[in-house]
Amino acid sequence: MSYYDESIPQLTKMLRNLSAWLDVATAHAEARGFDPEILLSSRLVPDQWPLSRQIQASCDAAKFIAARLSDTSAPEHPDDESTLDELRARIASTCAYLEGFSAADLEGAGELELFLPFLQGGSVMAPDYLREFALPNFYFHVTTAYAILRHNGVSLGKQAYIGSMNIKPPPG
Amino acid sequence: MSYYDESIPQLTKMLRNLSAWLDVATAHAEARGFDPEILLSSRLVPDQWPLSRQIQASCDAAKFIAARLSDTSAPEHPDDESTLDELRARIASTCAYLEGFSAADLEGAGELELFLPFLQGGSVMAPDYLREFALPNFYFHVTTAYAILRHNGVSLGKQAYIGSMNIKPPPG
Repeated sequence: MSYYDESIPQLTKMLRNLSAWLDVATAHAEARGFDPEILLSSRLVPDQWPLSRQIQASCDAAKFIAARLSDTSAPEHPDDESTLDELRARIASTCAYLEGFSAADLEGAGELELFLPFLQGGSVMAPDYLREFALPNFYFHVTTAYAILRHNGVSLGKQAYIGSMNIKPPPG
Repeated sequence: MSYYDESIPQLTKMLRNLSAWLDVATAHAEARGFDPEILLSSRLVPDQWPLSRQIQASCDAAKFIAARLSDTSAPEHPDDESTLDELRARIASTCAYLEGFSAADLEGAGELELFLPFLQGGSVMAPDYLREFALPNFYFHVTTAYAILRHNGVSLGKQAYIGSMNIKPPPG
């Protein structure tokens, strides 16, 4: 068991799934004859972030897990993407960043005490941060992005959400 | 690190959060003068499960993690809940079931090979099942339940989603 196995490969895969959903969304929009970029401002409720911001938040959630569990600084992103292609590039750059980490980089996470901005002087141990906040938050934004696309008629299913799995095929 | 710490306490807490969202939804419906049970048949898209089924699926996802990682049989649930109170009871009974597990029960998960119905004769190691399928699936249904409530005007925020965290307060 390692904090790396618990987080990085799965974060990378889910971000790649998210990027693939955008491709399905683009094909859907083209088939229906509307501009796919319109989807980026779609929301489920007026006081919840639109699709574009859900994608940025998914990337940030993944980036901060890698940075904080390895006790390094995350690269800054100004969240200025305004097109599907720019958001695809943001996802790809986050995946490349995640792939720069190895299990050894996160080995010390168990002893790391994190003083995060939103804890107002308080702290949380890195494993609790991962399990109680960061992973749930990552899945929150990824699933909300998925929900916005589904709500707008994009055809996605559980297989597209889960993506590939490390499955051993039946014998024979 | 343990598979227990990676799953059971967090699953239990998220299910309790979900139950609390139902209380907020009930208060919202009463304030607006509509029957809160109406929310149970609400969906984000016609071909996605309604709120009631998202709650049942959240409970099942948690239950199967505990059962499969401990190599035991999960209790059966016929998914016959049709009221908010019955769904609250389903959540409470799932939480009680999860609380019956200890870290020792999941100690052997690393060596467990799981032959799951949907793998059609294939298998997956229990840690891969947990990280690649079961946790993402759990968060999918919990977040979709949250999204359905938000879409119907129920006032929830990230704090209600995340719930309590193991935070060390600032000194002094």
